Amino acid sequence: MNTFGQIFRVSLFGESHGVAIGAMLDGFPAGFHPNFDELTDFMTRRAPGHTPGSTTRSEPDTPEILSGMVSGHTTGAPITAIIRNTSVRSSDYESLYATPRPGHADLPLALKTNFQNDVRGGGHSSGRIMAGLCFAGGLAIQYLKTQSITISSKIVSIAGIPVGDSVDSFGLDATARESIAKAAAEHDSVGGILSACICGVPPGLGEPIFGGVENRLAAALFGIPAIKGIEFGSGFDGASMRGSENNDDYFYPSPELKNPVTRTNHHGGILGGMTSGMEITLRVAVKPTPSIAAVQETVNLRTHEAVKPFQISGRHDACIVPRARPCVEAACAITILDLLLLSRAGQSISNLETP
Amino acid sequence: MNTFGQIFRVSLFGESHGVAIGAMLDGFPAGFHPNFDELTDFMTRRAPGHTPGSTTRSEPDTPEILSGMVSGHTTGAPITAIIRNTSVRSSDYESLYATPRPGHADLPLALKTNFQNDVRGGGHSSGRIMAGLCFAGGLAIQYLKTQSITISSKIVSIAGIPVGDSVDSFGLDATARESIAKAAAEHDSVGGILSACICGVPPGLGEPIFGGVENRLAAALFGIPAIKGIEFGSGFDGASMRGSENNDDYFYPSPELKNPVTRTNHHGGILGGMTSGMEITLRVAVKPTPSIAAVQETVNLRTHEAVKPFQISGRHDACIVPRARPCVEAACAITILDLLLLSRAGQSISNLETP
Amino acid sequence: MNTFGQIFRVSLFGESHGVAIGAMLDGFPAGFHPNFDELTDFMTRRAPGHTPGSTTRSEPDTPEILSGMVSGHTTGAPITAIIRNTSVRSSDYESLYATPRPGHADLPLALKTNFQNDVRGGGHSSGRIMAGLCFAGGLAIQYLKTQSITISSKIVSIAGIPVGDSVDSFGLDATARESIAKAAAEHDSVGGILSACICGVPPGLGEPIFGGVENRLAAALFGIPAIKGIEFGSGFDGASMRGSENNDDYFYPSPELKNPVTRTNHHGGILGGMTSGMEITLRVAVKPTPSIAAVQETVNLRTHEAVKPFQISGRHDACIVPRARPCVEAACAITILDLLLLSRAGQSISNLETP
Amino acid sequence: MNTFGQIFRVSLFGESHGVAIGAMLDGFPAGFHPNFDELTDFMTRRAPGHTPGSTTRSEPDTPEILSGMVSGHTTGAPITAIIRNTSVRSSDYESLYATPRPGHADLPLALKTNFQNDVRGGGHSSGRIMAGLCFAGGLAIQYLKTQSITISSKIVSIAGIPVGDSVDSFGLDATARESIAKAAAEHDSVGGILSACICGVPPGLGEPIFGGVENRLAAALFGIPAIKGIEFGSGFDGASMRGSENNDDYFYPSPELKNPVTRTNHHGGILGGMTSGMEITLRVAVKPTPSIAAVQETVNLRTHEAVKPFQISGRHDACIVPRARPCVEAACAITILDLLLLSRAGQSISNLETP
Repeated sequence: MNTFGQIFRVSLFGESHGVAIGAMLDGFPAGFHPNFDELTDFMTRRAPGHTPGSTTRSEPDTPEILSGMVSGHTTGAPITAIIRNTSVRSSDYESLYATPRPGHADLPLALKTNFQNDVRGGGHSSGRIMAGLCFAGGLAIQYLKTQSITISSKIVSIAGIPVGDSVDSFGLDATARESIAKAAAEHDSVGGILSACICGVPPGLGEPIFGGVENRLAAALFGIPAIKGIEFGSGFDGASMRGSENNDDYFYPSPELKNPVTRTNHHGGILGGMTSGMEITLRVAVKPTPSIAAVQETVNLRTHEAVKPFQISGRHDACIVPRARPCVEAACAITILDLLLLSRAGQSISNLETP
Repeated sequence: MNTFGQIFRVSLFGESHGVAIGAMLDGFPAGFHPNFDELTDFMTRRAPGHTPGSTTRSEPDTPEILSGMVSGHTTGAPITAIIRNTSVRSSDYESLYATPRPGHADLPLALKTNFQNDVRGGGHSSGRIMAGLCFAGGLAIQYLKTQSITISSKIVSIAGIPVGDSVDSFGLDATARESIAKAAAEHDSVGGILSACICGVPPGLGEPIFGGVENRLAAALFGIPAIKGIEFGSGFDGASMRGSENNDDYFYPSPELKNPVTRTNHHGGILGGMTSGMEITLRVAVKPTPSIAAVQETVNLRTHEAVKPFQISGRHDACIVPRARPCVEAACAITILDLLLLSRAGQSISNLETP
Repeated sequence: MNTFGQIFRVSLFGESHGVAIGAMLDGFPAGFHPNFDELTDFMTRRAPGHTPGSTTRSEPDTPEILSGMVSGHTTGAPITAIIRNTSVRSSDYESLYATPRPGHADLPLALKTNFQNDVRGGGHSSGRIMAGLCFAGGLAIQYLKTQSITISSKIVSIAGIPVGDSVDSFGLDATARESIAKAAAEHDSVGGILSACICGVPPGLGEPIFGGVENRLAAALFGIPAIKGIEFGSGFDGASMRGSENNDDYFYPSPELKNPVTRTNHHGGILGGMTSGMEITLRVAVKPTPSIAAVQETVNLRTHEAVKPFQISGRHDACIVPRARPCVEAACAITILDLLLLSRAGQSISNLETP
Repeated sequence: MNTFGQIFRVSLFGESHGVAIGAMLDGFPAGFHPNFDELTDFMTRRAPGHTPGSTTRSEPDTPEILSGMVSGHTTGAPITAIIRNTSVRSSDYESLYATPRPGHADLPLALKTNFQNDVRGGGHSSGRIMAGLCFAGGLAIQYLKTQSITISSKIVSIAGIPVGDSVDSFGLDATARESIAKAAAEHDSVGGILSACICGVPPGLGEPIFGGVENRLAAALFGIPAIKGIEFGSGFDGASMRGSENNDDYFYPSPELKNPVTRTNHHGGILGGMTSGMEITLRVAVKPTPSIAAVQETVNLRTHEAVKPFQISGRHDACIVPRARPCVEAACAITILDLLLLSRAGQSISNLETP
């Protein structure tokens, strides 16, 4: 389904080359005054044409808010925002349908809908749909801040090379910029690894088993095209550790503190699917952009003939990792806001009735 | 929430030391004759006391089916199965509540429910709840087989050491067994990495964005306690590759084949959230069992005093990776069955109307 | 689907003549101490063999609680309760499948599941499944009382004849008892109309459009077999009124009161899908029991031959209206509890931040 | 929540005097070519300014489709359509907030959102939001027609007076038109009763208990503002009948027919929550429009002072029953389409495997 969340529910719609893309947000608290400049700045981090190696398609991601707000504040009614597509390509559909691009959604979409989908630029599977996620996430981030919850992210590595401490505003160091430039020059692309950190989350969010925080975060994060892996806390490295090493001991830094903390954070802030009160830490793997100008090989789905060499023209990102960063933050934000609102519904008797 | 799925919906209930644990399955197709011996064999793979390093708690996982079946076949009504807890511990609750075990759900559960939860043996967060998942998954696996979909899994590594080809019935080689025995002797535990492979899945299952196959599989798999990471296809390794390397070219092995295939499978059978028709491949990281007899450190949540040394007595698994294997297969099965049934609802006009 | 609710989620399972029937309750607040005597009394009001004209099948509705409670209080984990079927009929299946009883679910169930369902005694469509609803509702009623919300019901009419003020413990007056006795003597059955009133509901529960209180109450109440109509406030009578008559003016009985009230209550406590703070009032139509011993006419679904005369032997209720009363109260209770918990999640910024 | 449906999911957004109102449709089958003239005609039946006694607000309901369609057919991606509000009122908010109109959603909305909502013209609770429902329903009706399912409706009575056979294009006879004109002249309003009939529905749609067809239809229909009652088949009248009278006997009109039919249809096409294959028949009560120019009485929510006389200026419908008709058809259509698609997911083994 196209909707994420149980209380704060985010639905995305639109196609890369259709009339408009957008987002519908249900259940956002009433009475919130968003800072629209901050929202635009956040959305610009994802917009094309701003990062090294990014496509030059230069549509600004300026949302028009159609509903759910009045006099600058949210009303509790569904918030719908759209962004019109100004740079639409009219295409030779038949060739697009018939020859699926490797690494793209073209093949499954064609077979799923019996060639009825809108394949221009990836259609509803396009990365452009993420503008709607960033709109939703940008609002959620602002609300979470009022609850002392903050979300940050870093680029851990590009093309397998760790990113150092000295980074530019996109989170890239000199080596990373060089890797991207080199890939672009060779009509190729590179991927990378991102980390995110969610601070200030109260303990006890999430539910055991299927409603766990990891389940929910993963369900949102895999909605970002190109993400192929996710790990929490010590993650895959933790699988090599001893229990005595991976377990995080509890202590009170000062006896006045309400809740204990852990010295280490191998559990990544989540135990048994629920938040422990420590920072939530996670890492995601972003695959290299599948849109490359290099020569590839595909087939014609109508004639079953091989199509080689196969070359994709048009606008490509040599690396989408910097643009994926705000998307990761946004996916974390919509998940945590939903869990936070959900926890208000699920308060135990004692919490409610103890003064 | 405690329920997974949209058409085939699995809910788990029960606590480790309560009256019974169980599963309620809604939406399983009517008219299916399960093979109960096969189901029992599958559930026994997860049951305690059978694998190297496993706890000696020896409750058999024999489900009693209360509803949804008649004369040996499913009726379409909800299937409920329970397993009574025969080896229940009556406990010093106060001490359990007050001193959360490192690496366990105790702390978040205590804070979430204001000390109202049932903490004995992990309560509803216990691994024992997975018996219900294996009941659901065992049925789903049998149904999927009739649709030519099969699920297999392997242990990739234990304690960071790759498992070789010569394995026993639990998927362990001599080195892995030795690592586990050593950890057990030292009152410690080890984790590992599992891989799973889902073959025969038709192309086009799953939806773009939040309804993707990766989102759904991750949402199910993180329901298994101890799983802290997941990757599909080339996953985290793919983040180091070039696009030209990670993309999988299409070809027809023979022109009569209905759908093309790929030479490589870096996409792990999933593109744009939808199945491509290739095998779905994934890997999960299983953390070392947090229940260890080694000396740890915790706190008293009532008095805020340090509790050290802290030692957990009782039955522990030095390695739960072999027991996690059927759980991973079960989580894959319930997800794929749900997506398969969902795809029948979502068939396009052309599929339905073309003869 | 078999589950009702968004935060407090109630699932029912079981068949009339299967092993057991039951309920799984997800999201019930932790830390609540139910009064089990009160719960049993409530469930007994629905149980067979207690009301005039009721079947003599005398299974006691004594639930066994399998999970979600410890030391007499709820833990926040899913609560599962079962009632074993002690009075199970083994049947000539083939004849049951082939000859659908008029007014029963037999025909649609047979066609829906291609004769795979369990038709004994109505299977999963049996009124007996309502024991699970009454378990869920009985708990919800007790919790709602702690929030000053109470639910009551009355029998408005039996067989079209209004019920007077002087009623017995089942809500029946002498005329009603006579109607029922007469119908029973003639191997026939009678229906009736029930009203319910929910007092103490805070204003603002429910959502506009599809999440309205009427939508949710109706979605729960039509889950009770035999209910064929529902109206809120002035309902069908209101359709004959003028706007000036049907509108309810506002006033403050005393200026200290927080919220205004209405002099009349034609809106039945619900405006625009949301509670106004006035009593929720509703009426439901209960059809005459379809199980009658009188001669009817049906068909053989295998041979397509007419089956007449067709006579149903066995245990029948000449009137289920008194037994439907606690079911109506239960359906109201699970709906209102769900909406109440949901409203805690949806509090507006101002509500949360104003001291 | 703001979304209806499980496979075909309809979400409505917008406020009466906001930027735009609209609908997002998820799960509509791919490859369908809607007839847009027919869709516009259907939506015009609900639009203001066309029916006797209707408001003169004359915004045309012309949807702009933003997503989910290409080259005139649906793609399987979410379909979003918006209608811009061209006749927007800028208002004295404070007075609107403070003095809730009797019979409107103003009071619960104000208390629910702590005066944060957009109250102009009813905000998100406005009847204007129904334009989005009619867009969704208009598409669903066209699709259902290809499956031989048709939906019709009639006005049964206006102001308590039955409507005769000789009706105009709005379903009104001379007496009804006169009642409406008289109410309008007296600054008042009238309500009425509508019936709907859904023909051609296959047997076996819907699920026992909470997933029943009555539950689902009611959950959709109560989303239409002003509907206060609903009954299926013999409904409230059936509550006065004997079982022998209300039960519908089965027979085969000809032995070649696949399924039996009933001579009468007191069950309204639904038994045990599932369709029987007979026509689904239902009636709904539409309350008199609460917006009347007549003198009423209300309060000031800030000062707690009485406000009398209270008079609403602006555009009012003396009777919305004719405009509610297409809304009722639309609500039926989205429900039945959802159940139809759901039934494809739930096919039993035998159905799938029998040739």
